[in-house]
Amino acid sequence: MVAYTLAVHGGAGTIDRAALTPDLAAAYHAGLRHAIEQGAAVLAGGGSALDAVTAAVVALEDCPLFNAGKGAVLNADARHELDSAIMEGTTRRAGALAAVTRVRNPILGARLVMERSGHVLMAGADAERFLSAQGMELVAPEYFTTPERLAQLRRVQADGRGVMLDHDGQSVTDRVGTVGAVALDTQGRLAAATSTGGMTNKRPGRVGDTPVIGAGCYADDATAAVSTTGTGEAFIRAVAAYDVAARMAYGGSSLADAAERVVEGLPGVGGQGGLIALDRSGALALPFNTSGMYRGYLRAGAEIVTAIHR
Amino acid sequence: MVAYTLAVHGGAGTIDRAALTPDLAAAYHAGLRHAIEQGAAVLAGGGSALDAVTAAVVALEDCPLFNAGKGAVLNADARHELDSAIMEGTTRRAGALAAVTRVRNPILGARLVMERSGHVLMAGADAERFLSAQGMELVAPEYFTTPERLAQLRRVQADGRGVMLDHDGQSVTDRVGTVGAVALDTQGRLAAATSTGGMTNKRPGRVGDTPVIGAGCYADDATAAVSTTGTGEAFIRAVAAYDVAARMAYGGSSLADAAERVVEGLPGVGGQGGLIALDRSGALALPFNTSGMYRGYLRAGAEIVTAIHR
Repeated sequence: MVAYTLAVHGGAGTIDRAALTPDLAAAYHAGLRHAIEQGAAVLAGGGSALDAVTAAVVALEDCPLFNAGKGAVLNADARHELDSAIMEGTTRRAGALAAVTRVRNPILGARLVMERSGHVLMAGADAERFLSAQGMELVAPEYFTTPERLAQLRRVQADGRGVMLDHDGQSVTDRVGTVGAVALDTQGRLAAATSTGGMTNKRPGRVGDTPVIGAGCYADDATAAVSTTGTGEAFIRAVAAYDVAARMAYGGSSLADAAERVVEGLPGVGGQGGLIALDRSGALALPFNTSGMYRGYLRAGAEIVTAIHR
Repeated sequence: MVAYTLAVHGGAGTIDRAALTPDLAAAYHAGLRHAIEQGAAVLAGGGSALDAVTAAVVALEDCPLFNAGKGAVLNADARHELDSAIMEGTTRRAGALAAVTRVRNPILGARLVMERSGHVLMAGADAERFLSAQGMELVAPEYFTTPERLAQLRRVQADGRGVMLDHDGQSVTDRVGTVGAVALDTQGRLAAATSTGGMTNKRPGRVGDTPVIGAGCYADDATAAVSTTGTGEAFIRAVAAYDVAARMAYGGSSLADAAERVVEGLPGVGGQGGLIALDRSGALALPFNTSGMYRGYLRAGAEIVTAIHR
């Protein structure tokens, strides 16, 4: 039996230490811890990596602090458009949703696409009709909105600064967001999941890297499970998540080296952010090129670790 | 100055030799030739690989025989939903459109996303609003419909066979479709472009591999320009287009070996189809695992070559 491992992230970016009050920092740590506990409970019970990343990302989506599900950022039309993806390493099955507006937990929608649609990626209102026909309850778009996100959009639009990466609620500025999880279960299987509200004040219709398998999410038992966070356009151009796996498969890189190199390469395509990556030996890497990344992990038999800055 | 090269494809699949009448075969060859001529004229005049693949794909989109633009297949609601992507190898800039219904030449829309949106991928009606605001004229969805595609949808739906890959107009059955082009210009720059109507009778909202950078389209001057065609879900799961480049970059594979390996790996994720790949030395590969792929190429100073079967 393999010792299970789970890691999560809640977005990377410039996280101002001064603006991050002790209370707010504690809330982020608690949100990360709760998500890890949800995923770890699955793994401790002998459940699958796929179920574990699903449970962890549902918890992050339900936490209003993170830019996914409840608490997602608003686009230029003051609407939410959510993206998500999930991938199972053993089978390389995958599912993803782009630009949905009424799916309470987009990661559950991505999983339904994977398991029941015969497709990998579905977009927009038609995707929601499919999910509804499959029995998924949809929510009013207002469900996702928090006062902090509305205030943030108003500030960005008043500033005329254009799009803004993730949330700066509470004056924690310039953060780039997304949530995600990677897991290794007791049977040695890997899985990855990613979910996001995208960028504050983004153009309506913009889709980031999250639902792009290979960019924002990838899993293959032979190499690694990867979930990314940052400037989505750069992660798409770099095919960032799959690049970690490819460096391991073809270049013989270790997981740590591969993950580090991918993050180092991001500025070459205008990118900043980070990723979490895990291989079947339990090696784990959480590199980022920003001042911080909300992150945490648990190894079987050890304590939960959470961190924000370096 | 580099000797320019251009290649195109018009879909891969089981192409029944008996059903492909001499007249129909001649029409396909003429359609491929015309697209190559449009792209080659750009290259011969010293233009960019990016402009050449754009011109070639516009010609394929405008030809009603191929499953992209005019002549695109219909989904289960008898509507067209079109996907496209373009990538420039020198800068790794990219643009893509998913599930648009009114963009006459989706490849021109993808290019506008690349050049003017600040984003890489845009989806649905909001993407069309952006393109319209940028001065792009939109067409009525009926523009794309041909009697052959309508008849094909009716046959598939009457058969209860579920989705069908590409067109079987004229009884040329089980073809999987998409069009694409790769080019190397006289300055040694690479580019790739891909455009499709997807699968006949597909679920509304389904997005294939075409607009997924790394799956249906990829270009990097350091490795290769790649455009794929086939069962999109498998190409997404395999990150097929980028996998060609990764095998070259990290594994030291030749372009031909890398391309062949990627196509060989497709059945492992349920895939069939093919791809066209070109590197900066002018090496060109056009592998497929189906009985045929509409394809053609031109090297500076030589004759245009077009082919359908092996």
